[in-house]
Amino acid sequence: MKLWLNQLKQAVPSDLNTPAELARFELESAFPGVAFDLCQQDSMGDAYRIEPLGTDGFRLTGGNTGLLYAAYRIITDRLCGESLSSPVASSPAYALRMVNCWDNADGEIERGYSGRSLFFRNGRLDYSDDRIRMLGRLLASSGLNVLCINNVNVHFPAQLLLEDYLPGLARLAGIFRPFGIRLMVSVDFSQPMRHGTGTADPLDPSVREWWKETASRVYAAVPDLAGFLVKADSEGRPGPFAYGRNHAEGANMLAEAVKPFGGVIVWRCFVYNCRQDWRDTGTDRPKAAWEHYAFLDGQFADNVILQVKHGPFDFQVREPLSPLLLGMKKTKLAMELQLAQEYTGHQIDLYTMIPMWKELYEELPSDRIMSVAAVSNLGDDENYTGHPLAAVNLYTYGLLAWNPAVDAVSAVTRWCRLTYRFTPEQEQTLVSLLLSSRRIYEKYTAPLGIGWMVTPHDHYGPNPSGYEYDLWGTYHKADRNAVGIDRTHSGTGYLDQYPEAFREKYGDPASCPDLYLLFYHRLPYDFVMRDGRTLIQRIYDDHFEGLEETRSMAEKLLALPFPEPDAAVIRVRMERQLYNAREWCDIINTFFHRLSGIPDGKGRTIYD
Amino acid sequence: MKLWLNQLKQAVPSDLNTPAELARFELESAFPGVAFDLCQQDSMGDAYRIEPLGTDGFRLTGGNTGLLYAAYRIITDRLCGESLSSPVASSPAYALRMVNCWDNADGEIERGYSGRSLFFRNGRLDYSDDRIRMLGRLLASSGLNVLCINNVNVHFPAQLLLEDYLPGLARLAGIFRPFGIRLMVSVDFSQPMRHGTGTADPLDPSVREWWKETASRVYAAVPDLAGFLVKADSEGRPGPFAYGRNHAEGANMLAEAVKPFGGVIVWRCFVYNCRQDWRDTGTDRPKAAWEHYAFLDGQFADNVILQVKHGPFDFQVREPLSPLLLGMKKTKLAMELQLAQEYTGHQIDLYTMIPMWKELYEELPSDRIMSVAAVSNLGDDENYTGHPLAAVNLYTYGLLAWNPAVDAVSAVTRWCRLTYRFTPEQEQTLVSLLLSSRRIYEKYTAPLGIGWMVTPHDHYGPNPSGYEYDLWGTYHKADRNAVGIDRTHSGTGYLDQYPEAFREKYGDPASCPDLYLLFYHRLPYDFVMRDGRTLIQRIYDDHFEGLEETRSMAEKLLALPFPEPDAAVIRVRMERQLYNAREWCDIINTFFHRLSGIPDGKGRTIYD
Repeated sequence: MKLWLNQLKQAVPSDLNTPAELARFELESAFPGVAFDLCQQDSMGDAYRIEPLGTDGFRLTGGNTGLLYAAYRIITDRLCGESLSSPVASSPAYALRMVNCWDNADGEIERGYSGRSLFFRNGRLDYSDDRIRMLGRLLASSGLNVLCINNVNVHFPAQLLLEDYLPGLARLAGIFRPFGIRLMVSVDFSQPMRHGTGTADPLDPSVREWWKETASRVYAAVPDLAGFLVKADSEGRPGPFAYGRNHAEGANMLAEAVKPFGGVIVWRCFVYNCRQDWRDTGTDRPKAAWEHYAFLDGQFADNVILQVKHGPFDFQVREPLSPLLLGMKKTKLAMELQLAQEYTGHQIDLYTMIPMWKELYEELPSDRIMSVAAVSNLGDDENYTGHPLAAVNLYTYGLLAWNPAVDAVSAVTRWCRLTYRFTPEQEQTLVSLLLSSRRIYEKYTAPLGIGWMVTPHDHYGPNPSGYEYDLWGTYHKADRNAVGIDRTHSGTGYLDQYPEAFREKYGDPASCPDLYLLFYHRLPYDFVMRDGRTLIQRIYDDHFEGLEETRSMAEKLLALPFPEPDAAVIRVRMERQLYNAREWCDIINTFFHRLSGIPDGKGRTIYD
Repeated sequence: MKLWLNQLKQAVPSDLNTPAELARFELESAFPGVAFDLCQQDSMGDAYRIEPLGTDGFRLTGGNTGLLYAAYRIITDRLCGESLSSPVASSPAYALRMVNCWDNADGEIERGYSGRSLFFRNGRLDYSDDRIRMLGRLLASSGLNVLCINNVNVHFPAQLLLEDYLPGLARLAGIFRPFGIRLMVSVDFSQPMRHGTGTADPLDPSVREWWKETASRVYAAVPDLAGFLVKADSEGRPGPFAYGRNHAEGANMLAEAVKPFGGVIVWRCFVYNCRQDWRDTGTDRPKAAWEHYAFLDGQFADNVILQVKHGPFDFQVREPLSPLLLGMKKTKLAMELQLAQEYTGHQIDLYTMIPMWKELYEELPSDRIMSVAAVSNLGDDENYTGHPLAAVNLYTYGLLAWNPAVDAVSAVTRWCRLTYRFTPEQEQTLVSLLLSSRRIYEKYTAPLGIGWMVTPHDHYGPNPSGYEYDLWGTYHKADRNAVGIDRTHSGTGYLDQYPEAFREKYGDPASCPDLYLLFYHRLPYDFVMRDGRTLIQRIYDDHFEGLEETRSMAEKLLALPFPEPDAAVIRVRMERQLYNAREWCDIINTFFHRLSGIPDGKGRTIYD
């Protein structure tokens, strides 16, 4: 199957040791005969300058990794038919551009839709060096530089990465090193208890000592480890709450242990009550992260990064930017995205994420955001991402992590051109289909920001009330008159967590953008929207349109001359998406029709 | 934990060969010094006579198995404090009194709530002889005589029971033989294809030959095998449809193979479209069994028994008697019950089945019903049935299979007295709680015969629309005005499958018993019932009452002096039932309140 950079015919050899060496290899094998002058300036780090040299040569200046990024810049530009005629300089917007794999040691991937783990098999580190090197090239060429290889839910024996499996981890880090990719490990907050501390209390001296010794041992084996990733006190994971400590106390203790080695602690903020009583209307899950973290602003150590999901729920198709990302001005933050299509079609349905990310980046303040992270969509399927077109999300995630100002059309076009050899017209068709896919998916799934109408647990396909009476805090409370939760000041108060301008825009149904309407407001079905349509008519219209647009998308996509086996995989998955889109459209419409009793104003079929 | 007959202190020894030998052992060890005269008359089969002999002795006359049933009659009578002072004679209403285990070869039990398989482990026959003998005693003492040990969904390697595992099967049959229990095996209709026939067409000579040879080989190893149990063309199982043959052709082919050895083919009638489109209102799943089988009446071989689930759906809390059981007058039939509490509380919630069975037996014609079968509630938990009180279902199932006229109070009292040593008052409390448990469970779950409002797949706990848009044909189509499916002549026509009297009783909402109302009719929430209540008020009332009655039941049950560890298990499960009952009550009420907008007439709390 086609991967971007498939035009590079030579595999990366195993005897390269540094990014600068790899940069030279990639350039020389891609463009034999072209002159390249590489000037390493370590202080430049990831940054680089490229200057034309003579008639067909270049001078590259940069840090060790900067030279590699410069090399991939030249290579991808050329493969895309662009030539660098004047000097360019570039440096990344975010220092840590991370991918979080949710791989378990048994080889299963939590929310994985591309096969099994690339790193683990049968409870052990077990991987193909060649596939890892190919992955390294893919990640480095898109600008990504940190890879956490194990699930944030650290199930035994993943703990052994810091213990018996450490030599294997060191070897894997060595394979990734020439690609400028540093490993990260998800750690289990209670891990010292496996070694007799009797507690994991972050203020307990024996616990602190254990983590310091462990960090020292781990960094002796993997000196450039990026650090530890921690999911604590979340969905059953152990954490500082058990000892009456707050998350700053928990994170700072770990930060102290890795600090001497230049490591960071990435601390996830996905903390909420996952045992909520559906009858309890006093609790509103989106408020949880703010309530757990905002008051700790300024209390985290300098090498702690709080990793905050982009929205206040959990990777729904449409959520507002998390208030934590706007409000914690004295804390280092990372925004967490999800490449794995957990709620967005399981890498069966087309769902290109960049339009969504662009919306998020536009609202994101740049001053305290140090890093971005994305839950991986990788697996051991031949093409790494299951759906051949899902790779566009991995690639463009990297481009935006380097430079959020990159525009969506050019990023997606770049991926298409690096992957397939299409005519300009075909390429334009594909780019346009990819860019429209998110809005189409949004149209046929849960309406207007409400989210969560998915099959419980599995999260593919519709179930309008699947989570309605469950413990997860994700309710729409649709009844015969109205739907949605009032999250304004007069409702749950969630909106109070935002700055003034935000509150004003979203707080009034008259000014709230339509696509967020049911996230913030509870409205009757006959509510009249700005465009004159009623809420219920808008719901029907979106769903009928979403289905029609899927059919049209399928027709255009399947007419493109994808090479085999990509074509076959795309065809099969598109059949499944067509089925899924019809189920969503009809089920959501029927659900709201049964409740409201209001017929479609355009007389289309809504089933009983 | 306490099992009935726990007062028999001597385990059954391994060197007994016949039921008559076991009868003598059981009597002599239970009542040393008492004189017993056993007269075996083979022609009597399972039947027996008991005559008092002298001051404290008995003459037992019966077939080989009849003597054993007579022995258990004397023993259980005595343990219950009853003394036989005049002669009695008894014979079973049904020749085959079957238990169907849904055990997979890997040791999992489909719909099992009592641990893992008693027969299989790690893909092989693997069992404890002692536990099997204890099970034999339990089954024989309740009058049961056929045990199918493997799942009707025959997953590989269960096929090997007819092949490599045959010696192990023969050995197991030998352990059960003194208990008068004959084994049965679920077979895979496509099994000859494992041996190169290239087809499983029942009219293909090589297929017929393969089954004949197989039957011959199997019966050489297990001469008293009861026969084969078959689930064909049902939920993905292979069957004759693939070859354009009907089920009579399929069943008769197998019947021919086992006929020389006195075997029977038990052929399940659970055939329906399990890939139904929810939009399709022309298909009504309860009609399926009749449509597949009624026209074949009279075409089945003499040693074929059609095994028909008691209702037209699938073991819901309340269903009408299957029309097949009333209408196939020229075919041998077995009624299938389910001891495993799949939809009835997973052996967590108390659910004593005999009140439901009594209703079924009252409507069941006796002329063509040869047998009864029940899906097992057995597993390798210490007490075999998970919940200590779930054993009452296994025991009383046996009593009714022998004599459906046994009354519910005496059957349940008998089980209580054989199991626990309570005062008469305590015993009466327990009996009364057990007998009321089914109606209480019914009250707090889906209302008035509608069924299916359970968590999909798992089938424990409420999910009012969990199956509403799924492929299984189980829809209630509740909307803001009405709920239920019209299954009368003017609706789906399901009721047309019944005799005239049945049609008249159930066809008119005015005469249809309340508890079947929403099974047969689609009614508005303000429909006024015979007692003057509206439908919606009746739904609310039942649910609030069901929850209150569960609380009251819990209080009384937990006050009884159960011995440990039974008491602890009962306590923990009752806590879970209380939680479950509250969820059901509140969720169902909220669901209907959101739809109807009608408040509770008594002002009780219904959550938003």
